[in-house]
Amino acid sequence: VTDQAPCATAPIETDALIVGAGPAGLFQAFQLGLLEIKSYIVDALPYAGGQCIELYPDKPIYDIPGVPHYTGRQLVANLLKQLAPFEPSLHLGQVVTGLAKQDDGRFLVTTSKDTRFIAKCVILAAGVGAFQPKLLPVEGIEQFRDQQLFYQLGSKADFAGKHLLIVGGEDAALDWASRFASEQGPDRPKSVTLLHRRDVFQAAPEAIAQVKSLRDAGALRLMVGQVTGFVAEGSGLVAVQVTDVNGQTQSLPLDALLVLLGLSPKLGPIASWGLEMERKQLPVDTEKFSTRIDGLFAVGDVNTYPGKKKLILSAFHECALAAFGAAALIFPDKKIMLQYTTTSTRLHSLLGVDSKV
Amino acid sequence: VTDQAPCATAPIETDALIVGAGPAGLFQAFQLGLLEIKSYIVDALPYAGGQCIELYPDKPIYDIPGVPHYTGRQLVANLLKQLAPFEPSLHLGQVVTGLAKQDDGRFLVTTSKDTRFIAKCVILAAGVGAFQPKLLPVEGIEQFRDQQLFYQLGSKADFAGKHLLIVGGEDAALDWASRFASEQGPDRPKSVTLLHRRDVFQAAPEAIAQVKSLRDAGALRLMVGQVTGFVAEGSGLVAVQVTDVNGQTQSLPLDALLVLLGLSPKLGPIASWGLEMERKQLPVDTEKFSTRIDGLFAVGDVNTYPGKKKLILSAFHECALAAFGAAALIFPDKKIMLQYTTTSTRLHSLLGVDSKV
Repeated sequence: VTDQAPCATAPIETDALIVGAGPAGLFQAFQLGLLEIKSYIVDALPYAGGQCIELYPDKPIYDIPGVPHYTGRQLVANLLKQLAPFEPSLHLGQVVTGLAKQDDGRFLVTTSKDTRFIAKCVILAAGVGAFQPKLLPVEGIEQFRDQQLFYQLGSKADFAGKHLLIVGGEDAALDWASRFASEQGPDRPKSVTLLHRRDVFQAAPEAIAQVKSLRDAGALRLMVGQVTGFVAEGSGLVAVQVTDVNGQTQSLPLDALLVLLGLSPKLGPIASWGLEMERKQLPVDTEKFSTRIDGLFAVGDVNTYPGKKKLILSAFHECALAAFGAAALIFPDKKIMLQYTTTSTRLHSLLGVDSKV
Repeated sequence: VTDQAPCATAPIETDALIVGAGPAGLFQAFQLGLLEIKSYIVDALPYAGGQCIELYPDKPIYDIPGVPHYTGRQLVANLLKQLAPFEPSLHLGQVVTGLAKQDDGRFLVTTSKDTRFIAKCVILAAGVGAFQPKLLPVEGIEQFRDQQLFYQLGSKADFAGKHLLIVGGEDAALDWASRFASEQGPDRPKSVTLLHRRDVFQAAPEAIAQVKSLRDAGALRLMVGQVTGFVAEGSGLVAVQVTDVNGQTQSLPLDALLVLLGLSPKLGPIASWGLEMERKQLPVDTEKFSTRIDGLFAVGDVNTYPGKKKLILSAFHECALAAFGAAALIFPDKKIMLQYTTTSTRLHSLLGVDSKV
């Protein structure tokens, strides 16, 4: 796992770049590896796994072929283990911000961390899009982002001695509210308020019990309502307006705002790449899972074709055929043969396993 | 697992009949089960697993998605476990001998055990064909089959007191030669000869060592050569002609002949069903994996389409889409929705798992 320093450095030249480190992206890298194609993977999340990890890490999946049940986490762990012999290069925590075909037919791909790639082919395995935090729907409030408004936790010290408002009603919001309210060290905020639009939380019973016990002990304030406006002084945020279920609005002074409303997938720049899309999906052929742009493939939930079902097992098949499509472009003079992992000593050598087993 | 008595009984009426109990056939039954379609499976072998069990039961497979390595046996065991909630009906040890479309659009399928099915749709998951013993390439010798010429072991008593010739150079031939030559009970043959076309065996070192030690002890005769003819008296086989590597032929008297030359896949009757085939494969669409005959689907190694790779993981995808194709035929008035095994309480109920996990 490596990251390029911002800008100025030379772009990374590669045969294949994969956008998305969910099950499709990981298995795509494995299939490319079997054909001796080195690839890089970019993902918006700070870890591999995509929807499996973001949406159902601990829920069983029953239709992975040959596996009676796997949690999302187990599936991803095993895909990473399967991919390990090819030493994958994951560039995480960054979204693809640009994709342009150069005169030489290769793609220039840039990311939000200013990583740049020059790739002979790009395989989109972007699922339903990059998972991005749900934003507070209050016009103008984004001006305070990363100063007083946060969508993820950086350092706990950012909130030391501050009047902190946490917004959200799911586990992440409750857990962090409890942690800050229990904090006894120098990072302790001056006050902690948890705001949720309803008086019912969608969280684990223990998390709810802990928040209520801290509220009863006076360490935490619970409020029901939604942020509908804000009060600024100079360039600083000094309060938000909170409207309750009865339409009553009050002003709540604060120093810092931590919004944990969950993640929502966004196709982001892919949607604006000038690709003809059908219902947010990219039409592909079923021979190579290529889009209408030569060298640009799409696998998994991001693509569409007659009969398409958004199943992980279908993504796996698409990855295998896209790998052969990519190989034909990357090695135009080579006849690409299908070899079997059970019998091919060449594949055994690539996988680092003993052929004599 | 049930079997019908021969003939006369009413045919089994079913929504779906699957031909082949290899990985594709087993996962096909699972995918149909998720769509609430009951299916029956027919296979030539006496057990489930197809090529995985017949060709590489103990060899690792490294490209089953999300499973870093599985032996053929492990894959099949887990596919059977995954399928178990749908209580599959396997009709094993029989090949499909006929398939005809009736006036009502359903298929009449008959097997070599005279099992008959009336099915709304048939899914061929027949791989490279039914595994059948390789025959002795000697014209006319098949007339003695099951009387004095055997391709599989029935009862050891069949060879008691007989001059037995075993033909073959792989494990099965060596193992049985050793067992018969070591037999001390009433089933002991009068003599045991092992004939192989070369003086090198393709078998486990222990099996070779045991055969040689029995030869040295005088319990077994080893010959190098091929059966090129036979001598009959009346309706009985009395000797075979064996030609050695130098072209010398000698007559070898015998009472019984056990030919263990391995299994070879044969598409058999499927190849003569009047289906347009390309290089022994059935062309299908990639939307439903349907052949050109309405209601007849083909998945796995038996089918072909642009981009086709004979990979188990592709078969799994084909099974899923074929299941939706079959469902549209079986439930013409129902809109078939894709449900996820992770979240659907309906699927949890079908799979017999707890939705609250």
